[in-house]
Amino acid sequence: MTDIAMIRAAAARAMGRVRQTPLLTSPFLDEIAGRRVFVKAECLQHTGSFKFRGAWSALTGMPETERAGGVIAFSSGNHAQGVALAAKILGVRSVIIMPRDAPEMKIANTRALGAEVVLYDRASEDRDALGDRLSNDQNLTLVKPFDEPLVIAGQGTTGLEIAAQAREDGIENAQVLVPCGGGGLTSGVALALEAEAPGMVVRPCEPAGFDDAIRSLRTGRIERNAAMTGSICDAIITPSPGNLTFPIMKHLCQPGIAVSDEECLHAMALAFSRLKIVIEPGGAVALAAALFHADSLPEGDIIAVASGGNVDAEMFIKALETNV
Amino acid sequence: MTDIAMIRAAAARAMGRVRQTPLLTSPFLDEIAGRRVFVKAECLQHTGSFKFRGAWSALTGMPETERAGGVIAFSSGNHAQGVALAAKILGVRSVIIMPRDAPEMKIANTRALGAEVVLYDRASEDRDALGDRLSNDQNLTLVKPFDEPLVIAGQGTTGLEIAAQAREDGIENAQVLVPCGGGGLTSGVALALEAEAPGMVVRPCEPAGFDDAIRSLRTGRIERNAAMTGSICDAIITPSPGNLTFPIMKHLCQPGIAVSDEECLHAMALAFSRLKIVIEPGGAVALAAALFHADSLPEGDIIAVASGGNVDAEMFIKALETNV
Repeated sequence: MTDIAMIRAAAARAMGRVRQTPLLTSPFLDEIAGRRVFVKAECLQHTGSFKFRGAWSALTGMPETERAGGVIAFSSGNHAQGVALAAKILGVRSVIIMPRDAPEMKIANTRALGAEVVLYDRASEDRDALGDRLSNDQNLTLVKPFDEPLVIAGQGTTGLEIAAQAREDGIENAQVLVPCGGGGLTSGVALALEAEAPGMVVRPCEPAGFDDAIRSLRTGRIERNAAMTGSICDAIITPSPGNLTFPIMKHLCQPGIAVSDEECLHAMALAFSRLKIVIEPGGAVALAAALFHADSLPEGDIIAVASGGNVDAEMFIKALETNV
Repeated sequence: MTDIAMIRAAAARAMGRVRQTPLLTSPFLDEIAGRRVFVKAECLQHTGSFKFRGAWSALTGMPETERAGGVIAFSSGNHAQGVALAAKILGVRSVIIMPRDAPEMKIANTRALGAEVVLYDRASEDRDALGDRLSNDQNLTLVKPFDEPLVIAGQGTTGLEIAAQAREDGIENAQVLVPCGGGGLTSGVALALEAEAPGMVVRPCEPAGFDDAIRSLRTGRIERNAAMTGSICDAIITPSPGNLTFPIMKHLCQPGIAVSDEECLHAMALAFSRLKIVIEPGGAVALAAALFHADSLPEGDIIAVASGGNVDAEMFIKALETNV
């Protein structure tokens, strides 16, 4: 089970490899939120999202004999790129299983990072069976996207940085808003801050209608999303929080915040004009919550994690055009 | 005259106020350039450009009695916002003289940062006379945009950071490409690197057709631009390099590189997709040179300064639409 010692160990392994991302501010955002807002720009991480942290932690934390045989992951997006780059740097083989209808650009990017991409048909093929077969036949170690202690530890290094940066900036208590898919980032950050900055309150943020983590926190047990499609925040939509991540969130997190697609697009446009960073829709849910739902939070500073920036030009243009 | 001691003193005054901006990389950009490219993301600086460094240095470096009376600056853009924010933080008055036809957004931003904006008519009013009158009548101290030792020292702190970050990343020798308007940033960076990283070669980058600094380096004396309008890189177009900045560049810089508007737009699109940062056209000239003119440079790593990100949505959309 992930604990603060595992997160610190992941941070030690990450030194010089994982980028320390800046905590950005703008007086214009403070004015919208009616309080100070700090944005942890994890979109500037290698491969454009925090997922590289978890992948690096998993690959450097597993036994060398396992790693040497190569790794395998299921992903159509950020986790794929994180695993591919980590494997490339470490000089080991990576196989990524992606749906045949994934965007051409994401497939190309994953291949360009050195991964062998295996495509499957969502309608006719069983992804898990394919993964098991490849993994067994070729001696590949599976790197899960969130429900894996080493991955949670890697994502938790984001929380260690937030704690250190908050200290430097004189922030003692804050609402820490985290985009939540399976809960790897949220639970890792919560564990890190529990140890390093106990004045911080961690809350998961999700797209409205796909708020499985928020509802799970409310009922105290794992709830599922009714659908997996229908939001522009597709990168952070999972069936439910994980069996490992949810107990951590249940223990450490306060109620979450759901935001609309329109609010995400607006937050993306404001991040463009005020912070000069590129955020993808799913990566913007926490900033959207900070800017447009601050009323529902106790007073004090807000730290919002901008978890990724892998958005195509078309969607980004839509964000700018609808919010000028 | 600015020297390394002045730059170090400016860095000491900047501690905790000026943001240390990251040095970003992407394997995809390395592939385009055919070598390693490091991007100093100065667009992430407060107010969206390096200009805040020089403004902060000038305001904190001038005698307190002068500062207390307030400051005045001429600018339609990045320098205005840098001076306004520095004055606001220090609790002193700032007056910014802007042309009446400046973009509404820039005027609004400068006002929102606490400055008193005085508009003048480019056709019928003498800007310098207006500035002299305001300055004399109201006891305001002029903060020049580049040809001022304290401002050059402030911009030079970018160079100190580059030297430290390059050491961390194991870069010993590199071509350091810097967007060049009046030469404040280029000369400051060159002075800092001469002292801290003598293996670095500094080169100014400019829009083709507005390459006054490049031509001045070639002839050895200050050359002027034939026109001041006609490039999308308007933020970095000045009549000529400065009387203080040019001798420094002449002493320390190697020949510069001119790039086309189209190359700037392409570099902006690649910074969007590969680095997740927003760069304005003038701020993209060095990255454009790194990506599309590496052939004209000696072998080795390139460090490109992305000097600012204050671009409106319309121009940014144009960059994305013409380069997908």
